[in-house]
Amino acid sequence: MTNRYEQRLRRCSDLMKAAGLDALLLTKPANMFYLTGDGRLCAYAMITREVKVALGVPETDVADVTRLAHFDRIAGFENEVGMIHSIAHSFEHFGIREGNVGLEYTFLTQSMMAMLTHPHAKPAGVTVKDCTHILSELRMVKEAEEIERIRAAAKVAEAGMSAAVKAVRPGITESQVAAEAEYAMRQAGSEGFWRTYVSSGPRTNIAHGLPTTRRLQPGDLVMIDLHPVVDGYSADMCRTVCVGKPTPEQQAAFDLYLKAQQATISRVKAGVGMAELEQTLHGILRDAGHSDHIFGPPIHGVGIEFEEAPLPAGHAFFHGEKAPPPLQANVVLAVGNCGLYTGPWGVRVEDTVVVGSEGAKVLTDYPRRLEQHHINQMPTNLGLIAGGG
Amino acid sequence: MTNRYEQRLRRCSDLMKAAGLDALLLTKPANMFYLTGDGRLCAYAMITREVKVALGVPETDVADVTRLAHFDRIAGFENEVGMIHSIAHSFEHFGIREGNVGLEYTFLTQSMMAMLTHPHAKPAGVTVKDCTHILSELRMVKEAEEIERIRAAAKVAEAGMSAAVKAVRPGITESQVAAEAEYAMRQAGSEGFWRTYVSSGPRTNIAHGLPTTRRLQPGDLVMIDLHPVVDGYSADMCRTVCVGKPTPEQQAAFDLYLKAQQATISRVKAGVGMAELEQTLHGILRDAGHSDHIFGPPIHGVGIEFEEAPLPAGHAFFHGEKAPPPLQANVVLAVGNCGLYTGPWGVRVEDTVVVGSEGAKVLTDYPRRLEQHHINQMPTNLGLIAGGG
Repeated sequence: MTNRYEQRLRRCSDLMKAAGLDALLLTKPANMFYLTGDGRLCAYAMITREVKVALGVPETDVADVTRLAHFDRIAGFENEVGMIHSIAHSFEHFGIREGNVGLEYTFLTQSMMAMLTHPHAKPAGVTVKDCTHILSELRMVKEAEEIERIRAAAKVAEAGMSAAVKAVRPGITESQVAAEAEYAMRQAGSEGFWRTYVSSGPRTNIAHGLPTTRRLQPGDLVMIDLHPVVDGYSADMCRTVCVGKPTPEQQAAFDLYLKAQQATISRVKAGVGMAELEQTLHGILRDAGHSDHIFGPPIHGVGIEFEEAPLPAGHAFFHGEKAPPPLQANVVLAVGNCGLYTGPWGVRVEDTVVVGSEGAKVLTDYPRRLEQHHINQMPTNLGLIAGGG
Repeated sequence: MTNRYEQRLRRCSDLMKAAGLDALLLTKPANMFYLTGDGRLCAYAMITREVKVALGVPETDVADVTRLAHFDRIAGFENEVGMIHSIAHSFEHFGIREGNVGLEYTFLTQSMMAMLTHPHAKPAGVTVKDCTHILSELRMVKEAEEIERIRAAAKVAEAGMSAAVKAVRPGITESQVAAEAEYAMRQAGSEGFWRTYVSSGPRTNIAHGLPTTRRLQPGDLVMIDLHPVVDGYSADMCRTVCVGKPTPEQQAAFDLYLKAQQATISRVKAGVGMAELEQTLHGILRDAGHSDHIFGPPIHGVGIEFEEAPLPAGHAFFHGEKAPPPLQANVVLAVGNCGLYTGPWGVRVEDTVVVGSEGAKVLTDYPRRLEQHHINQMPTNLGLIAGGG
């Protein structure tokens, strides 16, 4: 276990040297988790070129982190002032008085930045720089063990999707559909999940369909997007289903989207660029006359976060990332992240896939079908017993 | 409905004038929701002193936001570049070429800040300043309608807690306990929830006990902290229960904490300071010899966010907030946010209360009992059928 983190830290050190960084001061849980085995809020990890790690965590958490993490030095603190002093002590411990230190500009708010660069925390001779791209590059190609965890999360996503789709019927709320998915995912072994999206009817048209207490109606499309976490790793799967029999227009839009998504997946392999995949997916939708009906980056990486590098170049720029290099084997992608929004409703199908040297391996293999013959179009009596509106 | 937002915008305008701000450029969903009736990711609201509102949202979301929000101007954009140009157009629309514009420094990451202040977005003559404290001050005292929503969320929290506590038994995972709470909360009418914390055994000792697949064992303490959202408003409730019969030490720690929490609630009323309440809660724990066993701010505000202003002065400083003024009637607080960590386990009891002129009204009234006589100490067979470890 220690060995895994030492290897990652050595790769990190190489990237730090190339970027002219003497140390990293990390606070983003996903990045700390990758390099040390533990990531939590209100904590920091200082990483040196010499692959040494100092952790600062709430005083209460020292025993728990000691059990979970790889580190050379750990210190507890009581509050924000204690955290500032603890950072100063870690700089001192490593003898860092000057040079360049990497911070996570895509994670740090202005006020967190002010804390980490407070004169009582940061030596006057130290200059801070963005290190977002280093962590993205490090985490981009997955180890076998990481892929196994993402595969486990994908199986959990399938369990969640199955429960959610079974629950779809007139009268149930979007939130209650989400409840079924989340309950099933926790029962199937996930420790948690990123935001569950469930949108229905006209709400399938919006970019981020967080569930509401809207009740499903006959003829509604329902978009369900799940992101379970298993052993710290995520999967990302979206399905769209119809409450009853879809109209020909709904079926045609769904068939088109599925064709575009599957065509894109069939082009995924090592050496291909993200832009080429994006063009494939968007191109098929555009050629069918939907240039104005597409929103969102169609493809992104999946790992510790359900949305991480590689990001499409345009998107990456505004998230402090470099444009991604051609795909390497064992990068994990979600394909089908952009919606096709044709006016009164939208459709989307998204799967998590592993890049291979000859093609993609699909990890989330739940059926891709708009029409669900099990769905009874009669309203349930849920409206009578549950609150909300 | 419009009237509600106009009133809030007028109060906002007064605070902007006092702070020398000509406009606000908001991207934090909770703040946009308060001032316009809609808050979502990847969107912005520009608010002028003349109480005019321009919204920029994803192109896909224009119809949905038009239905939900109060605004004078709305524009859709396709991507990050579109958002930058849309901000420039809104500045132009309002004729703002210079002056001070407020941004949310406690919400904006470095990279988001770079987008919002990009030369293609922000006129060269405009200076940006932090406006966090303005929104905190605005949202601090709740309207009657807001308190009703928080009360509804409190009822949902009780339903969630009841389901979670009923599920507590040896062999079930922390994640499965969380599943019961979340499922019950969605069934009871919540559209969602902030993070659910469930920690057990030695993990009750950590500052932020996100659930894991750890299985409960006889004699474990279990800490359950729920934050449902109803109509955009939250409640915050935490209970600690024992898997079986508590030891005398566990019972004594719980009794002490409950005494400190209840004593603090009994001192809550308009005119009292946050520091005084903090001293009351910490003081009772300290007097019993636990100076080194306390972590976290003991009291915080509750509203659109489950943790918002007023924050204790020490905490507020590092969150870009001013030290809070003496409490006013209709401020809503969570009392009991700090843990008492005595080594192998911790205890905590937290309730949401409304400040009144003569005292506090407790909204989350689920029983505060460590020992739960219904809990069967025999392991369930969940271990055999569920994944995870």
